[in-house]
Amino acid sequence: MANTSKIRAAVLGASGYTGADLVRLAARHPAIAITALVAKGHAGQSLAQVFPHLGSLDLPALVTSDEVDWSAVDVVFGGLPHGTAHSEIAKLPDSVKVIDMSADFRLRDAASYAEWYGGEHGAPHLLKGAVYGLTEHYRDAIKGARLVACPGCYPTGVLLALLPLAKAKLITTDDLIIDAKSGVSGAGRTLKQNILFSEAGEGLSPYGIGSHRHLPEIEQELGLAAGSAVTVNFTPHLAPMSRGELCTCYVRLAGQATAPGLRNALVTAYADNPFVHVVAEGVIPATQHVRGSNFCHIGVFADRLQGRAIVVSAIDNLVKGSAGQALQNFNVMHGLDETLGLEQLPLFP
Amino acid sequence: MANTSKIRAAVLGASGYTGADLVRLAARHPAIAITALVAKGHAGQSLAQVFPHLGSLDLPALVTSDEVDWSAVDVVFGGLPHGTAHSEIAKLPDSVKVIDMSADFRLRDAASYAEWYGGEHGAPHLLKGAVYGLTEHYRDAIKGARLVACPGCYPTGVLLALLPLAKAKLITTDDLIIDAKSGVSGAGRTLKQNILFSEAGEGLSPYGIGSHRHLPEIEQELGLAAGSAVTVNFTPHLAPMSRGELCTCYVRLAGQATAPGLRNALVTAYADNPFVHVVAEGVIPATQHVRGSNFCHIGVFADRLQGRAIVVSAIDNLVKGSAGQALQNFNVMHGLDETLGLEQLPLFP
Amino acid sequence: MANTSKIRAAVLGASGYTGADLVRLAARHPAIAITALVAKGHAGQSLAQVFPHLGSLDLPALVTSDEVDWSAVDVVFGGLPHGTAHSEIAKLPDSVKVIDMSADFRLRDAASYAEWYGGEHGAPHLLKGAVYGLTEHYRDAIKGARLVACPGCYPTGVLLALLPLAKAKLITTDDLIIDAKSGVSGAGRTLKQNILFSEAGEGLSPYGIGSHRHLPEIEQELGLAAGSAVTVNFTPHLAPMSRGELCTCYVRLAGQATAPGLRNALVTAYADNPFVHVVAEGVIPATQHVRGSNFCHIGVFADRLQGRAIVVSAIDNLVKGSAGQALQNFNVMHGLDETLGLEQLPLFP
Amino acid sequence: MANTSKIRAAVLGASGYTGADLVRLAARHPAIAITALVAKGHAGQSLAQVFPHLGSLDLPALVTSDEVDWSAVDVVFGGLPHGTAHSEIAKLPDSVKVIDMSADFRLRDAASYAEWYGGEHGAPHLLKGAVYGLTEHYRDAIKGARLVACPGCYPTGVLLALLPLAKAKLITTDDLIIDAKSGVSGAGRTLKQNILFSEAGEGLSPYGIGSHRHLPEIEQELGLAAGSAVTVNFTPHLAPMSRGELCTCYVRLAGQATAPGLRNALVTAYADNPFVHVVAEGVIPATQHVRGSNFCHIGVFADRLQGRAIVVSAIDNLVKGSAGQALQNFNVMHGLDETLGLEQLPLFP
Repeated sequence: MANTSKIRAAVLGASGYTGADLVRLAARHPAIAITALVAKGHAGQSLAQVFPHLGSLDLPALVTSDEVDWSAVDVVFGGLPHGTAHSEIAKLPDSVKVIDMSADFRLRDAASYAEWYGGEHGAPHLLKGAVYGLTEHYRDAIKGARLVACPGCYPTGVLLALLPLAKAKLITTDDLIIDAKSGVSGAGRTLKQNILFSEAGEGLSPYGIGSHRHLPEIEQELGLAAGSAVTVNFTPHLAPMSRGELCTCYVRLAGQATAPGLRNALVTAYADNPFVHVVAEGVIPATQHVRGSNFCHIGVFADRLQGRAIVVSAIDNLVKGSAGQALQNFNVMHGLDETLGLEQLPLFP
Repeated sequence: MANTSKIRAAVLGASGYTGADLVRLAARHPAIAITALVAKGHAGQSLAQVFPHLGSLDLPALVTSDEVDWSAVDVVFGGLPHGTAHSEIAKLPDSVKVIDMSADFRLRDAASYAEWYGGEHGAPHLLKGAVYGLTEHYRDAIKGARLVACPGCYPTGVLLALLPLAKAKLITTDDLIIDAKSGVSGAGRTLKQNILFSEAGEGLSPYGIGSHRHLPEIEQELGLAAGSAVTVNFTPHLAPMSRGELCTCYVRLAGQATAPGLRNALVTAYADNPFVHVVAEGVIPATQHVRGSNFCHIGVFADRLQGRAIVVSAIDNLVKGSAGQALQNFNVMHGLDETLGLEQLPLFP
Repeated sequence: MANTSKIRAAVLGASGYTGADLVRLAARHPAIAITALVAKGHAGQSLAQVFPHLGSLDLPALVTSDEVDWSAVDVVFGGLPHGTAHSEIAKLPDSVKVIDMSADFRLRDAASYAEWYGGEHGAPHLLKGAVYGLTEHYRDAIKGARLVACPGCYPTGVLLALLPLAKAKLITTDDLIIDAKSGVSGAGRTLKQNILFSEAGEGLSPYGIGSHRHLPEIEQELGLAAGSAVTVNFTPHLAPMSRGELCTCYVRLAGQATAPGLRNALVTAYADNPFVHVVAEGVIPATQHVRGSNFCHIGVFADRLQGRAIVVSAIDNLVKGSAGQALQNFNVMHGLDETLGLEQLPLFP
Repeated sequence: MANTSKIRAAVLGASGYTGADLVRLAARHPAIAITALVAKGHAGQSLAQVFPHLGSLDLPALVTSDEVDWSAVDVVFGGLPHGTAHSEIAKLPDSVKVIDMSADFRLRDAASYAEWYGGEHGAPHLLKGAVYGLTEHYRDAIKGARLVACPGCYPTGVLLALLPLAKAKLITTDDLIIDAKSGVSGAGRTLKQNILFSEAGEGLSPYGIGSHRHLPEIEQELGLAAGSAVTVNFTPHLAPMSRGELCTCYVRLAGQATAPGLRNALVTAYADNPFVHVVAEGVIPATQHVRGSNFCHIGVFADRLQGRAIVVSAIDNLVKGSAGQALQNFNVMHGLDETLGLEQLPLFP
């Protein structure tokens, strides 16, 4: 496929981990031509200077947003931090489709955004048309969307595990306990003391207990599935690895539901979904088994506590939890095979 | 203190991690003289050959149990695997005190042992006199004990966090969810595929869901505190670090109890206990902050779910979770200052 | 491409890391159909049971060598341990091409093999026709070969860095010092104490000083380039990471050679080679920048010592150092584009 | 020993890793009372806020240098970054002894300092009296010193391995190749991208090739031992671990020297030195075997290259490479047993 027939893509925030992983995958996607890389703080540099692992690619230099000829761009992948994405995206011409990986368009309610993200939303008029980009659950809406807001990494892991169960009313939604563990790359490339190697290495701790910004997103989507407001316990932990996210969800069974019943429901829900895999009975999801891939592994386990079960999901936070899911949405939006450009198998060990 | 006035100690299972960490600490304990090191499979070797990091010590060579003159031993530290400890310990003369770090004398009921450990108990007559060695909670009994069964690493972290709350009836005991994370050293030095560097590195997963052998121990002690049988959800995870154990306990508040109330109860319970530290409000326990030390850090956090709270504890699985606690019990048994030989501060980074 | 028109491949030793990484890549190779997976100790199991990260693939079950219909196999990828590969490969019909990743056919001299690998070679008649599979240097011979012996991971990193310099007589070959560092996966999946997470983690040490089995291979190839026997200092180190290999080569300049001259020679030598990349001046090769890819990054640096220079190469030991190079050779042997199936970019972070 | 009879110590730079490790050890030293902790950027905070692992200590709050009553301080441990230490130390009254862990007083020549550290030396008058604090080699001078400049971590590892050999003229000093590997804590706690967990984890690369600031220090001391200027190849690498430093030194044998001869010379040189241990033949130094301790392990190995040998040393960069050696010097300066407060055994695993 020659470049001229490809879909022309720009990446906003190409100097972050999310942007880089998007480039890593998009550069090998047969239908995409990367025509602009925006990274304000690195304008003028090559991507290879910022990310030596991408040095083999023949890509345009990093530029500021103003330097881009947006009329020559078909789709934008947004990898900017929350709080800066909304205003940048608001400036884009309507002709450009947007697949945003920031948090700025995930919450359907601008007031909720202001509460959790500490500032007015810069483009509330775009919120209404934004589609929540959890591909497996919003595929039809994504197809016709102009702006897709890809879920956060934690919501991806949690919602893939729990949404079908909440929708089918197999679990109650008033006593959900989600103990999540993430690799350090989830915190991004911005310098912070707690993500130094010597601080995070050989150690493990919770963080953002009851206050993590992925919380309202999880509650919003579970609430929509349940048909009423949902509050959850969501307790993320920082684990000493670069990639990977594990969500251990402690759920209360509704009615006569059982752990095997939950498993069956998930198997059915994801039967035709190439990336979500309910693991065989006896197998336990592990982040190292999905590393670098767009897969989500889910397992259901009986609980010793009566009326409870445990649902565990594992994803790569930068792929299925961000850049991979963005590309998956790109495929859906353009009527392409959903797995195009996402065929890479997990890298283990 | 000359050797002659010291308490003569033998270590069973000196070739395992638990045994080695006991030697590391005991060798610097001012009241202990290590007079025998038993490691059947390595008899004839020096400890330095098995553990080069202990090469600077002037210690007796490794021997078999039969080679030891038990009349010249005052106390035995047991570092054998469960299932082999009971019969070895049964052979020891009554004059020898025993501080066992295996699982063999933790369960007060031989039937329960047989069920969880897959075989008859080899020394049921010793069970009755065995004292559960959770120092902070059984100090008085430990003082007069001949045989102390040190808790498993997980039970140590869990029970230090929950026992005072269960005793004070600040939490209910029928809906306890314990999500635990351990470093790989908790699995010992015996060769197993899942603990290879390339398997466990850069990855995280649960294991032994609902079936981990530390479960009955947790339930036994919580049941004693609650005054009735207790069943818990205990879900351990393997994390890519060598040392460290974090227990995130999701508890249901009883009556009018609150998270700050739980915190106060723990502060009070551990006021005179040098190793258990309820962290300041706003601080979050982290395994890297107790690494290599006998400390246990505990924090209490409000839950977004009504009527719930989160109690988090962090320990070093090999120290407070095993060898350190064994030495702490040694101090208690011998009327010594509880911190003797355990003053080492955490090694961070 | 339908399966019928694909080249039918069998993998020997599919239960090891090398075999698994070969499957990972070959399963996505457009010209390959994997028709047999041999793993004696796991016969009857699925590959997913042995390697859950490959669970999404639809592959034949693991079998013994005897169960394979070799007439329906076009090419064999050998991932067996050294010492077992030669006899298994000797049994294969002549119609089957062999790309071996073991050490058994790398040494051109059976006596040398016996000396370094501690046993008679089981198929000396095959040695003569075996081609050393360092693609960039033996491309023409590989094209027509029936049996290709892919280099060891260390020789790959070392020889890519030094062969062009030795051939061009820009360096002397009597004072080569090679300080190499490898991730733990290089030691394979067989259980050994030193590769446990708790042993190898957070630590670094040399091993096999002066006695590593990759030594004769390095000396053989450098000797051929130099036109006379070569002895080198090769000192490998085990580093606490799963993948990655860095070779820091301290070389003595011949004649009027300079560090920039060495760099130019390497740039020229690898001009048309898609996987070997001489990094820009000022950039330093790092294993994390080639992780998961078939790339080799090489840098040349001035030495403070007169008449010396430093040549550094970085590869992924399992890809360019094994399975990736095997596929690259497959492409060469079959007249395919050398990058086919190897387009994956490095996984960073 | 009551506080009043203890030696009163202040720590400059208590918010860095070096300062923290000094506090960790000094707080348990029987002859030291920590009476002031200086950390300009954190003045007013407790040390526990900056380093939670030290939260169990009862220590004075962090203050600025101006807030300290220097007349009540006997000795200062300097943990400031190079470039700021010299002026702070110049301000101290003569009555205060100084044990500096920065680089500012290591180079005996102010011009060399200016060249390597990029600025004029702020206290050249103090340089003459400063003693290079490599305890094992400058013990007598340290005894009477007012200002001791503790060596850098790399120089410590390198010089302990090579100084006795250079002095005894068993090795030549014009062809020394030192391939060093360090854990990430050696880079300090200051935020830099390359020491983020996601950047440094699972990767290895050289850095500062031919330009590392520990170079002139190594050359200065080897030059003094050799009796003439020495230039070396010193190539440090960043390894994915927090602590530990391994120096693999490739040396050329002088005259009739042999590898066993080198080993004997080292055994003799360090016979009465409690912390430097020449490992048994067949044993290989490893950083994990000295972690957290003040030990240095050294091994000598034959080289396949004629006339060469390999000398390997392993230390903990923050202990023997910094804070531990500082305390060792403190002991020497005060006529105390050299091991006082440094008895901690390595923490393995």
